[in-house]
Amino acid sequence: MKKIAIVLSGCGVFDGAEIHEATMTMLAIDQAGAEYDLFAPDIDQAHVINHLNGEEIPEKRNVLVESARIARGKISSLAGLSVSDYDAIIFPGGFGVAKNLCTYAFDGPAFKVNTEVEKIIQAFHASKKPIVALCISPVLIAKVIPGAQITIGTDEGTAAHIQEIGATHINIDSHSGIVVDKTNKLITNPCYMLDGKISDIYAGATAAIQAMMKFV
Amino acid sequence: MKKIAIVLSGCGVFDGAEIHEATMTMLAIDQAGAEYDLFAPDIDQAHVINHLNGEEIPEKRNVLVESARIARGKISSLAGLSVSDYDAIIFPGGFGVAKNLCTYAFDGPAFKVNTEVEKIIQAFHASKKPIVALCISPVLIAKVIPGAQITIGTDEGTAAHIQEIGATHINIDSHSGIVVDKTNKLITNPCYMLDGKISDIYAGATAAIQAMMKFV
Repeated sequence: MKKIAIVLSGCGVFDGAEIHEATMTMLAIDQAGAEYDLFAPDIDQAHVINHLNGEEIPEKRNVLVESARIARGKISSLAGLSVSDYDAIIFPGGFGVAKNLCTYAFDGPAFKVNTEVEKIIQAFHASKKPIVALCISPVLIAKVIPGAQITIGTDEGTAAHIQEIGATHINIDSHSGIVVDKTNKLITNPCYMLDGKISDIYAGATAAIQAMMKFV
Repeated sequence: MKKIAIVLSGCGVFDGAEIHEATMTMLAIDQAGAEYDLFAPDIDQAHVINHLNGEEIPEKRNVLVESARIARGKISSLAGLSVSDYDAIIFPGGFGVAKNLCTYAFDGPAFKVNTEVEKIIQAFHASKKPIVALCISPVLIAKVIPGAQITIGTDEGTAAHIQEIGATHINIDSHSGIVVDKTNKLITNPCYMLDGKISDIYAGATAAIQAMMKFV
């Protein structure tokens, strides 16, 4: 059975992993007949957002500990993820990607990627194993893999940043639409970068996972 | 279009709403061609559990604020839920149900149900509108609706408590199995009260929602 590593960035769209994208990814992998393990970096969140009113709360929360909520406790530190144990890696979205896995939300195109995240993306790429990135996660790929072809949907500002970094952005305006970079084995889908319902996110995650399964 | 009220109890299986059950419920409703709104009581959680190691954390978190993570911010206080606006109500599971919506996790069969939760269950029942309860949530129904016929799967201790309260428990040992109490318009499914994968939870939520749609 194929094994997929899922990397989470917290628990909740505004300061962590987008919960619908994370769970629809898990469902799509399960339905594709593969299995998955969950990982997250053992670092503090950039900040904590009250998801009811959008305001910052003066609290500290840890990305791995909060990601464990989505994982029902079954999750490991990203530091221990070994490429040889997995056939592919996937990054669901959420602002946690742009705040905790890299600094894109704060620094724009000059952002830095967390060292552990950068290393694991490089390692999967070097091993010629597929990398799936949903929603805003393709910015990680754009920064780490030179010449990547990706989509984050149709947002012009983000697309311009991606081009500025040196990657190629392709507009996708439907939830089940994906961009497949065959050379680099990259699969990207916009998920909630396009307005949508949870069934649209399910369609996007499913399309991405099905394309991924052809590479593994 | 039919409108369904979903009641959450936090965000994370050990101190709040079970995230997979909540999102699979939302997906199943969406796929059934109905729409939903999310609600949670505006109260402190009973406690906060570190989902990585299972230990209690000395923090305060609010049930409505944390539930807003699953809802992407689109959620309202349970106090404002009006029965006349909805065709059915559904309670996903998670320890949050047994800790925040009632005191079952702490008090066993002598537990008390949160007053707002009790009133809204009574109101839907009095209006002859269906009530769906997943996982451990059927204990709420057992306490509030005299003579309810329900399932929480096959757990003998919980089943005995349900009988002790005066409800009837029916064993269900498959994820897609449901108990339908036609007299009271109650639909119950065990979800994670049986070991399972996320696709099993999807099957359970879908079976429950399809049964619910026949009543609305």
